[in-house]
Amino acid sequence: MTEQQPLYLGIDGGGSKCRVVLMSANNQLLGEGLSGPANPLRGMAVATTSILAATEQALQQAGLPLSTMSQLIVGAGLAGVNLPEYYQLFSAWQHPFARLYLTSDLHIACIGAHQGQDGAVIICGTGSCGLAAVAGQLLEVGGHGFPYGDNGSGAWFGLQLLKQVLRSKDQLIAPTLMAELLQAELNCSDTLQLVGHFMHASPTDYARLAPLVFTAAEHGDATARQVVLQGAAHINDIALRLLTINPAALCLIGGLAYKVEPYLAPEVRQLVVPSAQSPEYGAVCFARQAHANTLASGITQ
Amino acid sequence: MTEQQPLYLGIDGGGSKCRVVLMSANNQLLGEGLSGPANPLRGMAVATTSILAATEQALQQAGLPLSTMSQLIVGAGLAGVNLPEYYQLFSAWQHPFARLYLTSDLHIACIGAHQGQDGAVIICGTGSCGLAAVAGQLLEVGGHGFPYGDNGSGAWFGLQLLKQVLRSKDQLIAPTLMAELLQAELNCSDTLQLVGHFMHASPTDYARLAPLVFTAAEHGDATARQVVLQGAAHINDIALRLLTINPAALCLIGGLAYKVEPYLAPEVRQLVVPSAQSPEYGAVCFARQAHANTLASGITQ
Repeated sequence: MTEQQPLYLGIDGGGSKCRVVLMSANNQLLGEGLSGPANPLRGMAVATTSILAATEQALQQAGLPLSTMSQLIVGAGLAGVNLPEYYQLFSAWQHPFARLYLTSDLHIACIGAHQGQDGAVIICGTGSCGLAAVAGQLLEVGGHGFPYGDNGSGAWFGLQLLKQVLRSKDQLIAPTLMAELLQAELNCSDTLQLVGHFMHASPTDYARLAPLVFTAAEHGDATARQVVLQGAAHINDIALRLLTINPAALCLIGGLAYKVEPYLAPEVRQLVVPSAQSPEYGAVCFARQAHANTLASGITQ
Repeated sequence: MTEQQPLYLGIDGGGSKCRVVLMSANNQLLGEGLSGPANPLRGMAVATTSILAATEQALQQAGLPLSTMSQLIVGAGLAGVNLPEYYQLFSAWQHPFARLYLTSDLHIACIGAHQGQDGAVIICGTGSCGLAAVAGQLLEVGGHGFPYGDNGSGAWFGLQLLKQVLRSKDQLIAPTLMAELLQAELNCSDTLQLVGHFMHASPTDYARLAPLVFTAAEHGDATARQVVLQGAAHINDIALRLLTINPAALCLIGGLAYKVEPYLAPEVRQLVVPSAQSPEYGAVCFARQAHANTLASGITQ
């Protein structure tokens, strides 16, 4: 059997979805896969099942036998592996691949966004966080989770909306257009019913309401405009912190990014560039770099 | 059998405890009872079991047979019965008492605090809310639950503390004494471990941290002082809203009340009086008033 060209698999493992891409040594896309949550916080069994299911899909799409799995050089960016206990759990996983290189989902997002070059990325979706990678230094800011962290995220905006609507209903502040928009969205006007909707609400439930804040602000609602400025200031704070290690460019990713961008400070906005590639391609790039480093350091399998 | 003097039972039914007092027609304390949660949000079976257990205790303490239950005129202030669905559930309860008069826990707290007179009350404990009762008008403000409502409550203060500590650890704001106090309290300095503590934290878990904010503020910490002022402003907003119906006096109840009081506006502070009686006595008072009204309106059993 002759020495085969390596195959690279890039994994973007998030809290709700796992996306993989299979690429050849000369960077051709061979197959893709999509499955459920691959976040170790939901349990290792769930995460590894999702990863393997998406990998099998990608191999089938590429017309390759499942036994090819043992030849794959894998880069995985997984939500949660920045927590040492989950990193260790995954490091101890008896995976079926040739190699598995682990990092956070935020890191592969940054690598993908800048096509492997140094740079910074801020995710402003359901959650919020930022990372800058410059000359081997990684600086991570924010995240931490909702409601104590993730300031300026979709979930944060949705929670502020509900808070202000309840305050206006108690006549603690002036009426706000956000109340009408929220009532229309949920099809209920009663305060107790409104509250009932959110008694066990998830960050995703809150994040769904975020666009209403921007709609109200665009219609001149003063309370909504204040929330928008406060949320954008949180994202701006993350950006300014990332800029302390001088990334050459900044990508804004996530559903709320384009809403928040106009409110960022000029010195932040002038660094903003469009994202080049999605995180799973960043994971392939990470796998190539990590594997080249491993080979260069003389540690072979 | 001769007509008996009525016996009154007052129930303070909260989310964690149910307290009852049994009193004679001429206002003598005959017995007391204490049991588990009597909040219908935890299910009617749990709530009614707690109520009956505490009632049996009180009757036993009074040396009365359990059959006396059918003679009791009961006033119950229950968390949650301000929600119509829970009010209806309780109204439909086939209770063993002579009469059952229902209202919210906040209302009996107000009646107890002012010994049946008109007045206002603000609860600043794990949650926050206020009620004013003036000439038959009831005005209720705040509450709604955590994290969207309960502004200025213990849970709110604890959450702000964690938020600011995480921001300081990300170097988004200056270092704060609250970080050292929190780390000492939880005996951990690592950010990820800190966050781990709060991943599934309850309002009570957050409220436990509230005193640390005041300690840091008293030691001159600028961030903590800002949180204290913001929290007190929320409680002040509730008070000012209650004052719109001109209560003659205001009682502040709950574990954080004495911490927040010094920061309230002068026009609010000048109305503050100590609380006269605890909520279960307010419930007896409510039962007497409601029963007298029922008899006066000619509706007899």
